Amino acid sequence: MAAASSPAAITCRAAVAWAPGQALVMEEVEVAPPEAMEIRVKVVSTSICRSDVSQWQSKAQPDLFPRIFGHEASGVVESVGEGVAEFQVGDHVLTVFIGECMSCKHCVSGKSNMCQKLGLERRGVMHSDQKTRFSIRGEPVYHYCAVSSFSEYTVVHSGCAVKINPAVPMDRICLLSCGVSAGLGAAWRVADISKGSSVVIFGLGTVGLSVAQGAKLRGASMIIGVDTNPEKQEKGKAFGVTDFINPEELMEPVPQVVKRLTNGGADYSFECVGDTGVVSTALQSCSDGWGLTVTLGVPKAKPEVSAHYALLLSGRTLKGSLFGGWRPKSDLPLLVDKYANKVIKQFVAEANILHRRIIPLFIN
Amino acid sequence: MAAASSPAAITCRAAVAWAPGQALVMEEVEVAPPEAMEIRVKVVSTSICRSDVSQWQSKAQPDLFPRIFGHEASGVVESVGEGVAEFQVGDHVLTVFIGECMSCKHCVSGKSNMCQKLGLERRGVMHSDQKTRFSIRGEPVYHYCAVSSFSEYTVVHSGCAVKINPAVPMDRICLLSCGVSAGLGAAWRVADISKGSSVVIFGLGTVGLSVAQGAKLRGASMIIGVDTNPEKQEKGKAFGVTDFINPEELMEPVPQVVKRLTNGGADYSFECVGDTGVVSTALQSCSDGWGLTVTLGVPKAKPEVSAHYALLLSGRTLKGSLFGGWRPKSDLPLLVDKYANKVIKQFVAEANILHRRIIPLFIN
Repeated sequence: MAAASSPAAITCRAAVAWAPGQALVMEEVEVAPPEAMEIRVKVVSTSICRSDVSQWQSKAQPDLFPRIFGHEASGVVESVGEGVAEFQVGDHVLTVFIGECMSCKHCVSGKSNMCQKLGLERRGVMHSDQKTRFSIRGEPVYHYCAVSSFSEYTVVHSGCAVKINPAVPMDRICLLSCGVSAGLGAAWRVADISKGSSVVIFGLGTVGLSVAQGAKLRGASMIIGVDTNPEKQEKGKAFGVTDFINPEELMEPVPQVVKRLTNGGADYSFECVGDTGVVSTALQSCSDGWGLTVTLGVPKAKPEVSAHYALLLSGRTLKGSLFGGWRPKSDLPLLVDKYANKVIKQFVAEANILHRRIIPLFIN
Repeated sequence: MAAASSPAAITCRAAVAWAPGQALVMEEVEVAPPEAMEIRVKVVSTSICRSDVSQWQSKAQPDLFPRIFGHEASGVVESVGEGVAEFQVGDHVLTVFIGECMSCKHCVSGKSNMCQKLGLERRGVMHSDQKTRFSIRGEPVYHYCAVSSFSEYTVVHSGCAVKINPAVPMDRICLLSCGVSAGLGAAWRVADISKGSSVVIFGLGTVGLSVAQGAKLRGASMIIGVDTNPEKQEKGKAFGVTDFINPEELMEPVPQVVKRLTNGGADYSFECVGDTGVVSTALQSCSDGWGLTVTLGVPKAKPEVSAHYALLLSGRTLKGSLFGGWRPKSDLPLLVDKYANKVIKQFVAEANILHRRIIPLFIN
């Protein structure tokens, strides 16, 4: 089915979305060879991130269909384009939805992952030439986040892939390509959670559970999980959640409960729901004077975050982050090593309870 | 007029607001002796802060009139209440509108100025017994922020006054009691501005100009002032502003101009207008990846701060602070010393251009 490793076009299977919200269809697609500074990757594992689903459902860009979604993946380099010295055929990689060119103002700053050259791609094409590398019967098939991992083979810019330790199992580590890293980074890099602190996490999906695990590894003494799904109580425990709040079972506002549990408000709160309305609740749930709220969710509606000014004036901080603030090339190999060294074993070993792992080509 | 230093009641003059928005009237008021842990202060200088004016205009608390406003002041201790060991008659002090009890969770944390015992007083009375120390013909006259410095004498909790170096001129230093300290603290303590960075300040009142001077002393390489009052261009220069933007003279949005001047967005932006609508503009004006927006203003209308979530998700931080994050007792004497040592001479020496200094009893 897949062609041998070569710089020629490959015909392979991909799960193609023909229109917003329509069930993906397994199709034979042609994957062009990698252009200069690009690599073609044989996808080994990919997961479904909430952003894939939101974007698939969205009717905002109907002209970007047919489209291949997926951006959280692991794979093996199948071929390399002109000028690529960093990768060789056979290298194990994670794809990343925000790249790191290593040369723009942001990349050289050391404090930003907002690469000016390989940042979030929103037009369904490759960064370099604004074209697609996928086609069906000669007609273009659009990319997603310049990754498109719901395909047996995909082409990514070499700045949007990270070489990883080949000893780690790829079916687990693919979660570090987005969700798990986002949560760990929010806890470690963005919030820099300190030992003995109190944490409240709104939304116990992959991101929220990873924040919990990050908080646990930092020695937080209280980790409160908030979710309307009662099943998340048990799942949360496995990731370090010490107290669970189901807002639908409460007779009082969540911040009131959190303030009682934490004697005045949590040190850190995290919005991992993807609901801008929750940001204000998260701010209210953290302490005045020093409380930090990190917002990670991409909202499905209402893009405006709002909060009463007094929540800020009384010493709270609101901070956002994409991919947990990690710089993919600089930081992701260290996270993979932490997995290899079993420091973050639990995240990935328990990936099954996240219900997030998928094998490519599962839909027909 | 004023009684001799003694623990008896004093009759003196005060500028009294009889109703919201009505011109202050010079009245003879009776000032009770200080209760336990309180001190009575002979006010030497007081300034008018925008918050005094907003609160005087506000019709939200009509039952708290007659009222004596003023909270930014310097003075001399006239008498001390029972249990006060920290102050002696004759000590020079600055009053503070948020106290520091030195024993609550926030005070002992070392990272908060949100004292749980002597925080912002909103009901026009003293913290300790919820009563007033002012009266006219036996009827209570309400306090403001538990300071009420528009009176020749006032009573404050000993936790709401800070002993200062008696060598410094009180008619200048009173500005450190609120506005100048708020701006300096925002620049130094909250934002922690680094050398060579770019800064944009919305609103060049006392607070904004003090942010500018704080940024200058930190070695910021570009300090952009934004104000609709063209006179602020010259005033800004004296405080370190290197570039001036008058939004009313622009044909394009302010963030666009700031991004051009700073090659992508300022490192820090400050909202010093007291307009929640400006917070979003300030966020848009700072850089993605690392930009920090500090909001200091107390809005006169629309208490909700709002911003597009993507401004945060792309790595910006929004932080609020009251009194520049300074802990009054722990930090204010150091600022006064900086004035004594001429480190921050310029702020206060140029106070006249702030048009903020007043002498008590000026209104009739």
